Order: sequence, then structure tokens, then C-alpha cells
Amino acid sequence: MNVVFDPAAACPADVRARAAAVRLACFDVDGTLTDGRIVLDGDGRESKFFHVRDGQGLALLRRAGIAVAFVTARPGAVAARRAAELGVECHAEVGDKLAFVRELARRHDVGLDAVAFMGDDLADLPLMRAAGFAAAPADAHAWILQHAHWRSTLAGGHGAARECCDLVLAAQGRLEAYHA
Amino acid sequence: MNVVFDPAAACPADVRARAAAVRLACFDVDGTLTDGRIVLDGDGRESKFFHVRDGQGLALLRRAGIAVAFVTARPGAVAARRAAELGVECHAEVGDKLAFVRELARRHDVGLDAVAFMGDDLADLPLMRAAGFAAAPADAHAWILQHAHWRSTLAGGHGAARECCDLVLAAQGRLEAYHA
Amino acid sequence: MNVVFDPAAACPADVRARAAAVRLACFDVDGTLTDGRIVLDGDGRESKFFHVRDGQGLALLRRAGIAVAFVTARPGAVAARRAAELGVECHAEVGDKLAFVRELARRHDVGLDAVAFMGDDLADLPLMRAAGFAAAPADAHAWILQHAHWRSTLAGGHGAARECCDLVLAAQGRLEAYHA
Amino acid sequence: MNVVFDPAAACPADVRARAAAVRLACFDVDGTLTDGRIVLDGDGRESKFFHVRDGQGLALLRRAGIAVAFVTARPGAVAARRAAELGVECHAEVGDKLAFVRELARRHDVGLDAVAFMGDDLADLPLMRAAGFAAAPADAHAWILQHAHWRSTLAGGHGAARECCDLVLAAQGRLEAYHA
Repeated sequence: MNVVFDPAAACPADVRARAAAVRLACFDVDGTLTDGRIVLDGDGRESKFFHVRDGQGLALLRRAGIAVAFVTARPGAVAARRAAELGVECHAEVGDKLAFVRELARRHDVGLDAVAFMGDDLADLPLMRAAGFAAAPADAHAWILQHAHWRSTLAGGHGAARECCDLVLAAQGRLEAYHA
Repeated sequence: MNVVFDPAAACPADVRARAAAVRLACFDVDGTLTDGRIVLDGDGRESKFFHVRDGQGLALLRRAGIAVAFVTARPGAVAARRAAELGVECHAEVGDKLAFVRELARRHDVGLDAVAFMGDDLADLPLMRAAGFAAAPADAHAWILQHAHWRSTLAGGHGAARECCDLVLAAQGRLEAYHA
Repeated sequence: MNVVFDPAAACPADVRARAAAVRLACFDVDGTLTDGRIVLDGDGRESKFFHVRDGQGLALLRRAGIAVAFVTARPGAVAARRAAELGVECHAEVGDKLAFVRELARRHDVGLDAVAFMGDDLADLPLMRAAGFAAAPADAHAWILQHAHWRSTLAGGHGAARECCDLVLAAQGRLEAYHA
Repeated sequence: MNVVFDPAAACPADVRARAAAVRLACFDVDGTLTDGRIVLDGDGRESKFFHVRDGQGLALLRRAGIAVAFVTARPGAVAARRAAELGVECHAEVGDKLAFVRELARRHDVGLDAVAFMGDDLADLPLMRAAGFAAAPADAHAWILQHAHWRSTLAGGHGAARECCDLVLAAQGRLEAYHA
């Protein structure tokens, strides 16, 4: 059997160590788990575009015992639907993401150094600067890319979160299970 | 008349032979027949993006006497609509795709060597390793690309399935009918 | 005033002459006026993605006295909405596009040599081989690109039809009006 | 602290001066704040795709005391929803954008030299030639790109408006606040 897929192998040792420590993985929603589109119709109905391969990654994280949470500053009806489908926590209308996730980590009994956070814009910045592993989609705002420990090669909503999940799993030696 | 469109000509002989043997063509849905987007609104209504040229390819397969089936692990209300429109089988919430398609092939009275399967992620892997012709969209997960006999140049939901159909038809000498 | 936008200037004389003769411009819908996406939800509701700049081009054609019609083989509820908004004819569930447009041209009192047709797939082929000016979006099927007199640089649903409109208007000397 | 994000630094002095003078920022909707898609279903329901990072930029403009308005020639039910969410003005079915914005500027007590306008097609041209700062998305029509003082690197609906907002804020020395 030739196993060539090892996303951790290509990373600097520092990034691998950060990913290896993750016990709680938090994700911004718009622009990170979606491509940033806010789809609106004339009645004010909103839709979002999630990606099936991101969902698979989040499911693999959970199966590996890593907690997963969505953390968004916007109203969360759509995000909550996706979270429910995947069986993960969804926290919406979060004004201060750093304060919120600090408390969330406490409830999960881990420190911020064991928290991964993936975000794409200004409101994500304070948490990214405090999280143990700060990840950003390839198309995140320049402000964010500057402060991320790692950036995906795919854009938000197109598999960026999946790459992050794969990296965390690989760094923790949990990808082999999926190769027969 | 100059007929230059022959997708089989560019393929290795092994791939051509695999495509020539296909009697039952099975397709994963999300990420293969769609671009992987899970579109959700606040009421939980889900939409998917199929592609008109993929639909044309599936219709050509059927016209050539090749059975076509959608096989997805997810709930299938949306996929079933598309399948009905095209007059093909749709099997949803399939937990073990390999076991399921093995049985489906038996019902169609063909062996797995006469089955084509196109998929893009982890749940498709066991079936891809057993199918006579394993195809993957250009943007499939690295795990899948590694095990596919052939990959399309177009991404899922953007014509990947059509390329697969064209190749099968060409390998079976059935494309000429469409050139006057 | 420096007017540098002249899409006809870059075309071979033959294409310019074909575009100059157009009195009736017909467009396939899925894959030509849209990006080919068939958007479906679980209730079978279908949506399509048109483009605002294509709409502007069709409006300019009409203002220049050139008739515009949508001609699609699929059911036409969505296409009819877009056509109504733009004030153009919409003909749906057309089985034989060549026969249909031959008759449509007769009703408009022009010959097929004065008909432009833009299409992207197999069902468009016979009409493309008969129309005075056969155009294709950049991402049309290989079969179609082979038989088009001209192809746009943009993909279907992303401005391909607008390029076609601009070219026809330029070839007829009617673009200057839009430069002050 | 290393602050490397300064979009104004890369601009010619003339563009920087124009951006520095802006007190009222007006945006076309389809093709500028959206990617140009007109999404329609069979009941005539229309949707549009806005972008979360554009919304963040418009919010930053407002926080900096710069007035923001949407100005569209099309019916405005969808645009009004997005505008309401962001707390900005929305003016729909505007036949003559130049005349309208001239009057709007008067109501805001500024001259046209203090008006930024971002647009992508023919109906935007007269206003672009009169506005103090005329901006265009990367994928605007050739007519428009020809007359813009500045064009974004991102396409409409994919962050083009955000780049415009960032540039105006940077030219006015108001970006530093977001770096700790």
C-alpha cells in the first residue's frame, strides 16, 4: 500500500506542533466554512453555501475525539442548520470571539494553546492572535493572512476547513486509520 | 467532415479497456455530480447545483444502453429530483457503497469489472478500489485521486461527469453517431 | 475622447461580416445564458443563474432593432421569467432547434444567414451548422467549439452572451452611440 | 508590531488624493456588490449573492463617518434587504444615476469631488466620469475599466467593494485603528 497523502509532512515543525496540540477546533462561518456569499432574496430569506468535503473533515475531527464549534458574529439560523447536521456546537451573534472562546475552552477543560481557530476577517483577529493554532483560508483578508500560523491552499467554502482538519489529524497521527 | 473530438484517444490503453467494459455507471452526488456545495437556508431547505452538460452525458449513456445510478451517503430528496428528471436510479443514505453497488451490479446482471464509479471523498474509496473503472473529478480529495484509474480535467459539478460519460462512449465506439 | 473598445476590430473579416448581417439573435439558455447550473431543492423547485451584463447586452441588441429570442430544449418556467424581464421571446421545450428557428426566422422575415445562434452542447449543433453566425461560450462542449464561427472569452452565464452582443453591435457600427 | 497592510501605499498619488477626499461612497449593486448573477426561480423569486467581506468594509466606512449608499437601476427588494442589514441607504430603479447622485451629494452637503462611485457597466458611465473617485471591479465591462480611476484586483461580489473601502480608509489614515 502506498500512502502518499500526509499534509503534516509539508509543514514547518512549529505548525505541526501547534496542530498536534489541538483539542478544540473552532471555525468562523462566513468566508471560512462558506465562500463568503450572503445569498438574499426579496423576502429576506438568507442562504449560505457550505461544502460537503469540509463536513467530512469536521466529522473526522469529532470521530478522533476533538471538539468542534462554529463561532460567528452574525445571526446563526443557517449556520445552526449545518451544525446540527454535523452534530457540532454552533454559537452565533458572538460579539467578542476571544472572550467567548476563552470561556468555551474552559468549559471543555483545555487552554487556549489547545484551541485551533480558523477565520477570515477583522472580527477574527484577536482570537487568532491568542489561539494555539490560528488558521486562515487562502482567500482571507490580508489582515488575517498576516497573523495566521498556517493558511490553506483552498479558499473558504471550497475545502479550506477540510485542509485544516486533515492537517490536525495528520499531526496527531490519526489519518492512517483511513488507509487500508 | 473533420471529427477531432475523441476523448478516448488521449487515454492509456488500460483506461480505454476499463471504460470499454462499462455496463453500469454509478455516480456519487455531492462533489461529483455537484460542485460540493451544500446550500442551506434558515428553514433547513437544502439545494444543490447540478450541471446541464453532465445531464446530457448521462442521457447519452442511457441511450447507449448503459445503466446509470446515483449512489449517495447523504439524504436524497434533492438528488432524487435530478435523477427523476434524467430517468435514472437514485439510491440515497447508502452507508456502505461497495456492498450496495456489488448487489446493484448483481441485479443488473454484471460483475464489478463492468461497473464505473465516480466519486470524490473518503466514503467512495472502498468502491473505487473494487470497481472496474474508478473515475474522480479534478478537484476530488487527494485520497481519491490517488486511487482513481482516471481523473477528469473539469471539477465536480462543472462537467466532470460529462467527461467520464464521453470517455466511456468513445471507448465503446458510440460517439460517432453524434457527428453527421 | 479615446474610444478603444471595439470587439469587432480583433475579429477575422469573415466573422465581422457574419455578425454584420444579424437581424435575429437566438440564444440557448442553460450553459449559454447561464453557467449551466441546474439548481434544485427538495421540493423540485429549480433556479438558474443569469448575468446582469448579459441582460444589458440583450437590451442593447433590441434597442438597435435586432430581434432576440431564447430557444431551449428544457422546460422554460425560469427562462421565461428572465425573458419577460428583458422583453424578449422565450421558446421552451423545443425538440428540434434548427426546424424551430428556421420557422422563427421566416416569421421575422429573414433568412438563416441573418440569424445568430449561441449554444453550448449537442442539441445546438444542427442549428449552429445552419445559422449565419454560430457563436459559443468559452466553456462550451468540444463538439460545439469545433463548429462555432466565433467563441467568447468569457464562460456561459459570466458574460459570454454580452460579448456576442457587443460584437454584433460593433460589426454593425452601433456601439459608437454609447461613447460620449 | 509589523503592519504591512497598506493598500494606499501601492497607488499613484492622484488616486490616493481622490480616495482621501471621499465623504460619500456610492455603490452600484449587480456586478459590483454582487457577482452579477441574477438568480431566478420559476415563481419569479430573485436572489442575489453579496459578500460578507464587502459588508465588513461598508461597516468600517460608516464607522469612519463616511456615508454609504447603494444606487441601482434595477428593482431593489433584494438590495434593500442587504442595505438594511448594514444600515446604509438603498436607492433602486434609478434611471439617471448621475442626476440622482448629484442631488444625493447635495443632501449630504458635499460636492461630486467628495463622492466615490463603484460601478461595472454602461448605466454607470456618466456618473463615473463625474465622480471624484471612480472605481471599478476587476471584471467590469471594458467600457467601464477605461474610465475608472482605479480598479480592484478582486471581481464584483468577491471582495471588490471591500478593496475600495480599504483604500479609502487607508488614504484617510483610518486603518491603523484596526491594528493593535
